[in-house]
Amino acid sequence: MPIFGSWSKAFCNLHEVAHDLARIAKIRWDIGYQPPAVSSSCSFPPELIMPTELSRRARKLTSSVIREILKVTASPDVISFAGGIPAPETFPVDLLHTACEQIFAEEAREALQYSLTEGFLPLRQWIASRHSADVDQVLITTGSQQALDLLAKALLDPGVTVLVESPTYLGALQAFSLFEPSFRELPCDDAGICTAELTPADAADARLAYLMPNFQNPTGRLMSAERRHDVCRLMGDAGVLIVEDDPYGELGFNGQRLQSLRSIHPEGVAYLGSFSKVLAPGLRVGYVVAPAWLTAKLTQLKQAADLHSSTFDQRLAYRVLASGALPAQIDTIRKLYASRCDAMLQALQASMAAEVRWNRPEGGMFIWLNLPPQCDSHLLLQKSIAVAQSTRVAFVPGAPFHAVAPRSDCLRLSFVTVDAERIRIGICQLAENIRTM
Amino acid sequence: MPIFGSWSKAFCNLHEVAHDLARIAKIRWDIGYQPPAVSSSCSFPPELIMPTELSRRARKLTSSVIREILKVTASPDVISFAGGIPAPETFPVDLLHTACEQIFAEEAREALQYSLTEGFLPLRQWIASRHSADVDQVLITTGSQQALDLLAKALLDPGVTVLVESPTYLGALQAFSLFEPSFRELPCDDAGICTAELTPADAADARLAYLMPNFQNPTGRLMSAERRHDVCRLMGDAGVLIVEDDPYGELGFNGQRLQSLRSIHPEGVAYLGSFSKVLAPGLRVGYVVAPAWLTAKLTQLKQAADLHSSTFDQRLAYRVLASGALPAQIDTIRKLYASRCDAMLQALQASMAAEVRWNRPEGGMFIWLNLPPQCDSHLLLQKSIAVAQSTRVAFVPGAPFHAVAPRSDCLRLSFVTVDAERIRIGICQLAENIRTM
Repeated sequence: MPIFGSWSKAFCNLHEVAHDLARIAKIRWDIGYQPPAVSSSCSFPPELIMPTELSRRARKLTSSVIREILKVTASPDVISFAGGIPAPETFPVDLLHTACEQIFAEEAREALQYSLTEGFLPLRQWIASRHSADVDQVLITTGSQQALDLLAKALLDPGVTVLVESPTYLGALQAFSLFEPSFRELPCDDAGICTAELTPADAADARLAYLMPNFQNPTGRLMSAERRHDVCRLMGDAGVLIVEDDPYGELGFNGQRLQSLRSIHPEGVAYLGSFSKVLAPGLRVGYVVAPAWLTAKLTQLKQAADLHSSTFDQRLAYRVLASGALPAQIDTIRKLYASRCDAMLQALQASMAAEVRWNRPEGGMFIWLNLPPQCDSHLLLQKSIAVAQSTRVAFVPGAPFHAVAPRSDCLRLSFVTVDAERIRIGICQLAENIRTM
Repeated sequence: MPIFGSWSKAFCNLHEVAHDLARIAKIRWDIGYQPPAVSSSCSFPPELIMPTELSRRARKLTSSVIREILKVTASPDVISFAGGIPAPETFPVDLLHTACEQIFAEEAREALQYSLTEGFLPLRQWIASRHSADVDQVLITTGSQQALDLLAKALLDPGVTVLVESPTYLGALQAFSLFEPSFRELPCDDAGICTAELTPADAADARLAYLMPNFQNPTGRLMSAERRHDVCRLMGDAGVLIVEDDPYGELGFNGQRLQSLRSIHPEGVAYLGSFSKVLAPGLRVGYVVAPAWLTAKLTQLKQAADLHSSTFDQRLAYRVLASGALPAQIDTIRKLYASRCDAMLQALQASMAAEVRWNRPEGGMFIWLNLPPQCDSHLLLQKSIAVAQSTRVAFVPGAPFHAVAPRSDCLRLSFVTVDAERIRIGICQLAENIRTM
């Protein structure tokens, strides 16, 4: 089961457009995929499906064919660089076990009861203190993903302009798209948004800018300090709210952090944090720190969305944080990820053809690969996961990470869940597959 | 803290309309409420609040003044019949503790990792088997509240007609309202929807009907077997999807269950279940069983909403269910609630004036009180929670439970979290307050 976990994080349903379907159907056959049989216990005949009209947004959703395929590839013999999930050996199991014991000994009934929509107060206070914020600015969310949904509900009407990086996190595109905005991709390079190329007109009609300055998903890039100030000034002047999504900020390999956008421009930034990458994602504990007026709106919206996040899991996370164990925990993760990143960079250097290019991440979980122009990453995936291959390798094609203009000559590699030896074998095979495309 | 838990469940923000504000302001003074001071650590000056434009739906949200007030009344000296929360002494703490130990011993990393959007497969299989459904029809949600949000996203466009009972659960009104439907209240009596009064025209233009047939929140009423068949036929003929919300179905005092709407009309019903009232609400484990085409759409929408519900809490709930301990657990809850319901009914009989009327619930958590026509439940609350009172009593005024035509001559009483002696004292005082209005 856990190997499937990546797909809910790693893929969305927005970009499997019609022209992909034929290609995908071909992949299904190549990998020996059989669609599930219609269940005999279903009580409705096929001709009766969809008797009710769907909303406009729901009619636009297409089925996630890529997600289906990658479920098929989630077998132990596939070397998967496709996941967006942390390395489970880093989970602080003993600390969480101790926290559990304490909860059952001291506050079992409180931890199992309904609680405030805003979240567990000591946890909010811990976060507020860490972010130099007032506790009223902090809302606990069911993972950072929920913060994206709530922000979309609070800010987006059909046709409103949303500024995004190119490429960007596809879970954000998925959450925002349901509220039918118009996306505008901002030009980016290895240091993030190319602020020198932006004019006030680029932001003038926008309502929010979605940015991931630290070790971005999918590229792994870090926005430079200078660009952080530039983008805050630009968006501040235009009255555009910045959504600063920061799940990987603690995962800088050298342990240093650049200034957050929120610390530069607190009145214009909604900061999204998460304990998924430093404690454990299964607990679904994330948070938003925003101007108080916005946090109040998000809280009202959260009440309608799920009343509150798990009382038990919030208290579990809080006890580990309050124990002071987080810095050592983060240090362990950084060291493991740095060594695996290094292994992947060495393997890429040793095996890739000259036309293939990649970045050198300083933290996070991902490397972004630019293929030769004629090389299509969907076809490359098809080839790489085919059952006929002696070494099967999975990754995520780059197209779905683009809001407006999908590019197929790029892909995302995660280096965190595969050990160094299998990284070397997998990258070597991938290089061979690219050379023979 | 736990005493606050009720408010996130019990109140919504939709009905605190302008004419309530003056009344509420008066209550604030009467109960000695001081609004929180503006925090000095906030980095934005007051004139800068709301620099960003909000969405149309977010602009319609009003602040939950009643929620604020009831936070103030959540002190131990108030006898509160206002909560919508289960009695914490019924939580199966030992069973959950054992399940926790097993998880840490056997599957800690899996329980802490990302997992499938659809939910934990063995839990879905358990639910599917119980509901004679296919596992593909089952989606785990972050409480039933999330299922309401996902259904609204899947089915509602602005102006679409939604049929509701009168009164109805205000958390559903809150979730649906964000998607700007037009509500139509159906006539109801003590046996639920008055199906004999309905014509095909009442349902013809609707997209969904939201119904709670078992021990409804807020009235506690049970829909009769005959009406269940009638409403299924009527909605089926009109092509209207029924949302059957059933958090209290297991809480019938005599242990019997009437046929679910889903079992009568499986292809036209989305059934919402929850473990909040039979295990523990803090875990936020709910589910939907729907036609497969709809479950697939809801799953896509859930992916954008929070990726998945807590892996840990799903496995925790599953282990308790799989242990076979649920029937005994439910029996314990039924007996406690039946005795407290009986205590409240006896107290009402002994003390209320002749013009006050109430129902006799056969299960669930609530009694609905109809006041004499001249008696306003908001003013009654103001009087009942005033600091000058020697015995302070809280309840929820009836107006917010109405989608279209709020009535102020009614209120909701919960009988489950107060012991019999305090029920007697509280009801006696409430009766006195009504008599002297």
